[in-house]
Amino acid sequence: MTETTLEPVELLVCTTCKMGRAIEDDALRPGNLLYEAMLKEDLPAHVTVRPTQCFTNCQGGCNIMMRGGNRYAYVYGNLDPETQVEIITDGVTRYYNAADGFVPWRERPEHFRKNCVARIPPLNLPEDAAQ
Amino acid sequence: MTETTLEPVELLVCTTCKMGRAIEDDALRPGNLLYEAMLKEDLPAHVTVRPTQCFTNCQGGCNIMMRGGNRYAYVYGNLDPETQVEIITDGVTRYYNAADGFVPWRERPEHFRKNCVARIPPLNLPEDAAQ
Repeated sequence: MTETTLEPVELLVCTTCKMGRAIEDDALRPGNLLYEAMLKEDLPAHVTVRPTQCFTNCQGGCNIMMRGGNRYAYVYGNLDPETQVEIITDGVTRYYNAADGFVPWRERPEHFRKNCVARIPPLNLPEDAAQ
Repeated sequence: MTETTLEPVELLVCTTCKMGRAIEDDALRPGNLLYEAMLKEDLPAHVTVRPTQCFTNCQGGCNIMMRGGNRYAYVYGNLDPETQVEIITDGVTRYYNAADGFVPWRERPEHFRKNCVARIPPLNLPEDAAQ
């Protein structure tokens, strides 16, 4: 599988997340910090970091989502913008390099294994997906 | 807004869910029961019920997902196939009738308000979605 056959990936970062903390109105939220940090990471060329609002998993923030093409999408939570940026970079790079989005369990970052909020079927879900 | 302008909706039901129970191999799982029950419901014509596998929220099953067109998608959990089918029918009908998918908070079924697992932006997320 060459890179040119891989469909692009979106890395969505919830920028409204406060991680349950009291945040001053004029202060950057943890979600903002995570988004800004991800923009500086060395990601594959076809991984786009985008800000978004509230995944509604506010008790388990910060949250990100990865999706793209025919891959299943994944929402991950409990991410700390100060200590776990590299974990996200590792995880989304592996996800991008898997054309079907299925990174073998043992190859996923441990944090991803333990903090998956939801796995979402692609829009073109095959008819036999539940078989 | 007339019905003809509303984009179709998918109601995905995880059919692999055991609700944390011990289920015999040859018995129908709670997720199967929920899927079969939803097929019998009187839903709007353009709401399609589809089976899918594991949303990974196994500790909070049964789970469903609603999505369609430019609407935000929602994953809801802790649904009991024996007692909460009508709640799902009510919720997905309201969701279908909202062209943008935003059902006012107070008009959502109470179970939906308290058991939203994740809210997922549509694929064509506007550039200013996080503003």
